[in-house]
Amino acid sequence: MSIPEEGRKIVGVIGGMGPAATVHFMARVMALTPAKRDQDHVRLIVDNNGGVLDRNVAIRGQGPSPGPALADMARGLERAGAELLVMPCNTAHAFADEVRAATPLPFIDLIETACDETLAGSPASVGVLAADGCLEAGLYQRAFARREVQVRLCAPDAQARFMDLLYRIKSGDLGEDVRGRMRGLAEELLAAGPQVIVAGCTEVPLVLGPADLATPLIDSLDALARATIAAAQPTGG
Amino acid sequence: MSIPEEGRKIVGVIGGMGPAATVHFMARVMALTPAKRDQDHVRLIVDNNGGVLDRNVAIRGQGPSPGPALADMARGLERAGAELLVMPCNTAHAFADEVRAATPLPFIDLIETACDETLAGSPASVGVLAADGCLEAGLYQRAFARREVQVRLCAPDAQARFMDLLYRIKSGDLGEDVRGRMRGLAEELLAAGPQVIVAGCTEVPLVLGPADLATPLIDSLDALARATIAAAQPTGG
Repeated sequence: MSIPEEGRKIVGVIGGMGPAATVHFMARVMALTPAKRDQDHVRLIVDNNGGVLDRNVAIRGQGPSPGPALADMARGLERAGAELLVMPCNTAHAFADEVRAATPLPFIDLIETACDETLAGSPASVGVLAADGCLEAGLYQRAFARREVQVRLCAPDAQARFMDLLYRIKSGDLGEDVRGRMRGLAEELLAAGPQVIVAGCTEVPLVLGPADLATPLIDSLDALARATIAAAQPTGG
Repeated sequence: MSIPEEGRKIVGVIGGMGPAATVHFMARVMALTPAKRDQDHVRLIVDNNGGVLDRNVAIRGQGPSPGPALADMARGLERAGAELLVMPCNTAHAFADEVRAATPLPFIDLIETACDETLAGSPASVGVLAADGCLEAGLYQRAFARREVQVRLCAPDAQARFMDLLYRIKSGDLGEDVRGRMRGLAEELLAAGPQVIVAGCTEVPLVLGPADLATPLIDSLDALARATIAAAQPTGG
């Protein structure tokens, strides 16, 4: 089965947060697409802009907002031909309203998509691994609360270690030490009882996979990739 | 050392030929950039359009030209904010004049870049692994002839096997059999005497690396990645 090219929508990707996560997202969209030739793939127009201001710093109120830059990127992608938009960065969704307001294009929300995929298995309690800014903005807490599901987060000291790992990954360190520490953090979180963990930060899947844990791990980036492929189809989005 | 963000140019990437090669190109630009944080990376705006008409079929005169679509993509990238253009597909350079004419932006030519990098070691003879369309259009033969360097190509039967491998790679097959056959083709070509081989097709580096051969292998995609990083710098082209 191939996605018919005719009538398929062009997807604009507001990317670069971080640049490696965006490249990984593109690779995942490709891997999850049933394709036999170049022409079977979803057309992605990607602004891989690592220069977007730090989302975590802005949410903490310690730096200017990246919202205007994200809105500019959305408008640029629309001018380049995009017909729907995605943003493969969880924390940046704190500024999703500015992206939505920037163009009339449909926007596939990563947080909502990841929540829906997580709840397909009807877990009573969900653990979330996410960056400070994403948690401070309450993105996953609110999305799960609307669905009446309890959310477990890392303890404060573990969260600090998570942020250290995050910036190591962004600096290009995907080594065994980082992988082991990320798995350790996930296991600490699981000890609090959740039945599933959401990798709610696009850097996490770069060093932690479902095979690393006994409990199901929902990759928010893969959830977005699947939703993107579906929405790009002539009958989708 | 980081590339200063201020004054750095935004690079437009005319991509999708094939989509995996473009994602690989993005990963190589990142890997070859001295970066410690998201903000250190070159900003790439990428149109990863697998729907571009088959270049090899068009050059053979058996199908319509992809030139107008490539020109449209160049204009779309300019509208999205690109300040210089690259096209990580060797064969598509048969239509480079249409891309150059589409916008006033500088265009970094992959073929010229790969030739320059190949001749840094002053080889007397160069072997080229490239797709039918790239060879029929004479892209590498002309570029090396202008530099007074002799080019060796695959024998016709080997070239047919090369094209089979190419379409297998495009279908997602990066397995051991494809790798072994590609290495075998390179070794057959080397038996004709060239002192260096140019991987003049963006799919080749997906299955063949410098460590696979005793003779130097020039990755045209890496050459373009290096030229792209240099040109994006405030002092660059």
